[in-house]
Amino acid sequence: MHRTKVRIVEDALDANNTIASANRADFDRAGVKVVNFMSAPGAGKTTLLERVVTDLPGVRVGVLEGDVEGSMDADRLAGLHIPVTQLNTGAGFGGECHLDANMVRSAIPALPLDEIDLLLVENVGNLVCPAEFRVGEDARIMVSSVAEGEDKPLKYPLMFRACELVIVNKVDLLGHVDFDMDHFLHHLDAVHPGVEHMLVSARTGEGVDELRAWFAALPERAHAGAAV
Amino acid sequence: MHRTKVRIVEDALDANNTIASANRADFDRAGVKVVNFMSAPGAGKTTLLERVVTDLPGVRVGVLEGDVEGSMDADRLAGLHIPVTQLNTGAGFGGECHLDANMVRSAIPALPLDEIDLLLVENVGNLVCPAEFRVGEDARIMVSSVAEGEDKPLKYPLMFRACELVIVNKVDLLGHVDFDMDHFLHHLDAVHPGVEHMLVSARTGEGVDELRAWFAALPERAHAGAAV
Repeated sequence: MHRTKVRIVEDALDANNTIASANRADFDRAGVKVVNFMSAPGAGKTTLLERVVTDLPGVRVGVLEGDVEGSMDADRLAGLHIPVTQLNTGAGFGGECHLDANMVRSAIPALPLDEIDLLLVENVGNLVCPAEFRVGEDARIMVSSVAEGEDKPLKYPLMFRACELVIVNKVDLLGHVDFDMDHFLHHLDAVHPGVEHMLVSARTGEGVDELRAWFAALPERAHAGAAV
Repeated sequence: MHRTKVRIVEDALDANNTIASANRADFDRAGVKVVNFMSAPGAGKTTLLERVVTDLPGVRVGVLEGDVEGSMDADRLAGLHIPVTQLNTGAGFGGECHLDANMVRSAIPALPLDEIDLLLVENVGNLVCPAEFRVGEDARIMVSSVAEGEDKPLKYPLMFRACELVIVNKVDLLGHVDFDMDHFLHHLDAVHPGVEHMLVSARTGEGVDELRAWFAALPERAHAGAAV
């Protein structure tokens, strides 16, 4: 039984990667860079996107918003006058706890690829399954809030490995939570040696300039093969 | 394709419920009440358990600790001199993002059911899939931290419906995060009208007495059919 089960999972991941490659080819043809934003629920992805999308000079940004149901985050971001497309995993996809390549493929016809240079994909809040499913992105960003605790890289190592950038968010709370940054960075280095990281507060804006610079340099990164 | 997929999911949930009933029968025979603790990663389940298990007079507590991998939380709790059993979803269960009835069934032989009155099951940190899988519990507790934001009941309604008690944790951070308690409770009432809730800080101990009283009254609740 277990052998069969594992085989099915592997087949599904192979199929996902094939579709992810097709997505990537479509994005490349349109000249659109794609970043997959992942985190636990409530780590601050949407607030971070609000900070970033309004101030990337010369870059036309669009958002693909992934949620089990509802469109609260999409509605917040649409108020910033950028194109936002909602993708619900509850409608036709069984209420999945992550985005996969097939879901993103189904959304491509609704994306204004000719009108944007950068597509930010906000994944479903979850520290397990999103790490297993590429969607055709150039790079993956993992957001971890200091309120979640310094042990998270050790408890969810796949997620912290499956990214090119780790954002440690809500650093404005550092004086109010039991979180030792040195311990966190030590744990992070243990599971993903050398991965780039930034200390940020989406709430106060601290550190967000560094993230904007990262986005501005994304085309060169992707070209140089630094991003996958 | 979608019809087939949904059918498989329904069959899997039926099978899960059958195994959950078998688990429940085993727990009932042993006279052990079982509570399923669910939350997002980093909401404070383990710290809350540390607060509770050390001060439930006359109740012998055991913990079944669910994680994708590792035993950090189990090690923390074992230091409190209670029986702790680790259940990893990464070992033989494909790295699943939740506990299900079959996983808990596989752990039953390792549980000291004769030596405990109350088994606290700490689920994998996740706001989507744990809600779909009963494990044979008498009651489910959902822990939501104020650091995660007031919108969570609307974004993950199934999770907030699939519980008999909602604990709003980390209330010591209320002055430092953008969280309006009235809004949160309004959203909670919209998705699960009348569900019991408690405002708690596992860090400071605020509100934990009320939770201890809830556990002390659990046998009568289960007997009266208040819990499922």
